[in-house]
Amino acid sequence: MSWGTELWDQFDNLEKHTQWGIDILEKYIKFVKERTEIELSYAKQLRNLSKKYQPKKNSKEEEEYKYTACKAFLSTLNEMNDYAGQHEVISENMTSQITVDLMRYVQELKQERKSNFHDGRKAQQHIETCWKQLESSKRRFERDCKEADRAQQYFEKMDADINVTKADVEKARQQAQLRHQMAEDSKAEYSSILQRFNQEQWEYYHTHIPNIFQKIQEMEERRIVRIGESMKTYAEVDRQVIPIIGKCLDGIVKAAESIDQKNDSQLVVEAYKSGFEPPGDIEFEDYTQPMKRTVSENSLSSAKEGKPELKFGGKSRGKLWPFIKKNKKARENS
Amino acid sequence: MSWGTELWDQFDNLEKHTQWGIDILEKYIKFVKERTEIELSYAKQLRNLSKKYQPKKNSKEEEEYKYTACKAFLSTLNEMNDYAGQHEVISENMTSQITVDLMRYVQELKQERKSNFHDGRKAQQHIETCWKQLESSKRRFERDCKEADRAQQYFEKMDADINVTKADVEKARQQAQLRHQMAEDSKAEYSSILQRFNQEQWEYYHTHIPNIFQKIQEMEERRIVRIGESMKTYAEVDRQVIPIIGKCLDGIVKAAESIDQKNDSQLVVEAYKSGFEPPGDIEFEDYTQPMKRTVSENSLSSAKEGKPELKFGGKSRGKLWPFIKKNKKARENS
Repeated sequence: MSWGTELWDQFDNLEKHTQWGIDILEKYIKFVKERTEIELSYAKQLRNLSKKYQPKKNSKEEEEYKYTACKAFLSTLNEMNDYAGQHEVISENMTSQITVDLMRYVQELKQERKSNFHDGRKAQQHIETCWKQLESSKRRFERDCKEADRAQQYFEKMDADINVTKADVEKARQQAQLRHQMAEDSKAEYSSILQRFNQEQWEYYHTHIPNIFQKIQEMEERRIVRIGESMKTYAEVDRQVIPIIGKCLDGIVKAAESIDQKNDSQLVVEAYKSGFEPPGDIEFEDYTQPMKRTVSENSLSSAKEGKPELKFGGKSRGKLWPFIKKNKKARENS
Repeated sequence: MSWGTELWDQFDNLEKHTQWGIDILEKYIKFVKERTEIELSYAKQLRNLSKKYQPKKNSKEEEEYKYTACKAFLSTLNEMNDYAGQHEVISENMTSQITVDLMRYVQELKQERKSNFHDGRKAQQHIETCWKQLESSKRRFERDCKEADRAQQYFEKMDADINVTKADVEKARQQAQLRHQMAEDSKAEYSSILQRFNQEQWEYYHTHIPNIFQKIQEMEERRIVRIGESMKTYAEVDRQVIPIIGKCLDGIVKAAESIDQKNDSQLVVEAYKSGFEPPGDIEFEDYTQPMKRTVSENSLSSAKEGKPELKFGGKSRGKLWPFIKKNKKARENS
C-alpha cells in the first residue's frame, strides 16, 4: 500500500489532501489555543472570587478571622486560589507543550510539502519537454517520409516519361535518393528519441513519482503521528494537575475539620467578658432608723458607679441597667 | 466555659455577634453561589468549544471523519463535552447540597435567634417591672416613715403643750398610732416585695439568662458545625467528579492511541485510486510503411479516450496529461 504506486496519477488530489492535512493541524492548534483561553478565564474568575471574599486588611473583619470557622473559610479561599493556579498551569503547559511546538511544526510541514510538490512539478515538466521533443521528431519523420515518397513518385514519373532528358531523370533520381536518406536519418533520430522518451517515462512513473509520493505519504503519516502525540499531551497536561487539585481539596477538608465550635465559643467569651459578677441581693433600706438611711442610699447609688457594658438591647438600649452591684455578699441577707 | 455565666451582662454584644454569625453564613452561601456560576460559565465555554469544532452535518467535512486522526479529534471534542458536563455536576451538586440547604437553614437560624433574644428581652422586661415595683414600695415606705415621724413629733409636741385639750392630745396620739401602723404595713410590704425581687433577680441572673444564653451558644455552635460540614461538602462535590474527568482524559488518550497513520494512508488510496495502470511505452510509428500508419495513429489517439483525473497541478491544471495509456504490454516493445 504505497501512494507512489497506487496513486501515481493523483498528483492534484494529493496536493489537495495534504493541504487539508495542514488545515486539520491548524484547526487543532486553534482548538488548543481556545482551550487555553478558557482555562485562563476560568482561573481568573476563581482568583477574583477568592480575592473578593478575603478579609479587608487592617479592618474589624480581619480581626474576626481569629475564629476557626473564619479561618477555615480563609483556607478555602486560599486553596481556591491555588486551584485557580492549577488551571493556569494547564493553560501554560498546553501552550508550551502543544501550540508552540505544533505552530513551529506546521511551518516545517508547509515547507516540506511545498518542496515535495515542487519536485513533482519539475519531474512533470521534464517529461512534458521530452514528449514535445518526441512529437516534434515524429512529425519531422512523417514530413520527410512524405517528401521522400513524393520525390520517389516524381522520379518514377520522370523515369517512365520518354520525353524527358536523362539528365532530368538523373536529377530526379538523386533528389529521390537524397529525400530517402533524409527520411532514413529522421527515422533514426525519431527512433532514438522515442527510445529515450520511453526510458524517461518509465523512470518517471516507476521511480521519480513513486519516490516523491512516498515522501509525501511519509510526511502525512508523520503529521498524523504528531497530532496523535499532541492529543495525548493535551489529556496528560490536564491529568497532571489532578493530584495538586486533590491537595487543594484536602486543604479545604482539613480546614473544615479544624473548625472547633467550642474554641470559637471560648473566643467569644474572651472578646466580650466584662469580668463583673452578677449583682447580688438588694439590701433592705430601713427608713424607720434614720442612721441606716445613709448606708443604704450609698449601697443603692453604687449601682451607678463605673460599670461598663451594662446596656441591654432593644428598647433599653443606652439606658444603664440598674440592678448591677459588685456584691460578694449576694443572698447573704435573703 | 458557658456564655450563660461568663457573658451574663453581654446581651447587646451577643446580639451583635450572632447577627455577625448569620452574616458570615450568608456570605458563605453567596460565595458558593458565585462558585456555581463560575462552574456553569466554564462548562458553557467548554461545551461551546466542543460544538464549534464538531464537523458540519452532511458536509464534506463529516465525510473526512473516517480518518483515524479526525476520529480521535472528534473523540476529544466529545470527551470535552462530558468534561464540561462534570463541571455542571459540580455546580448542580453545590447548589442542591450546599446553597439550597444553607438558605433554608439560615432562615431557621434567624427565627431561632429572634426567638431567643425575644425570650431574653421578655425576662429583662419582667425584672425591670419587678424593680419598678420595688422602687415604688420603697418610696411609699420612706414616705410613710416620714409621715409617722411627723405625726409622732406632733403628738409629742401636743402632749407637752399644757394649753391643749386632752381630746386634741388623744386625737394626735391616735393619728401618730395610725401613721405608725401604716409605716409598719408599708415596711412589711416593702420587705416582702424586696424578698420577692431578690428571688426574681437571682433567678434572672442564675437561671433565665444562663438558660437563654446557653441556647444562643448552642445555636452558634450548631451554625459553626454546619458551616464546617458545608465546607467539607464543597470540597467533596468537587472531588467526586475527578474520577469521571479522569475517564474523559482516558478517552482522549485512548482515541489518540487509536490513531493509525497506515490505516489513514490506505483510506487515502481508497478515496483517490483511479484503478488505471501507468502508461506503457509509446510505440514506434513507421511512416515509411503506410499500412501501419492507421494502427499507430489509433494507439496514439487512445491516450485521449475516457481517462478521468489525469490533470496535473500548477500550470498544467485543466490540461489532459497525454502520456496515459491503459497498456498491459508496457515495455514489451522497448
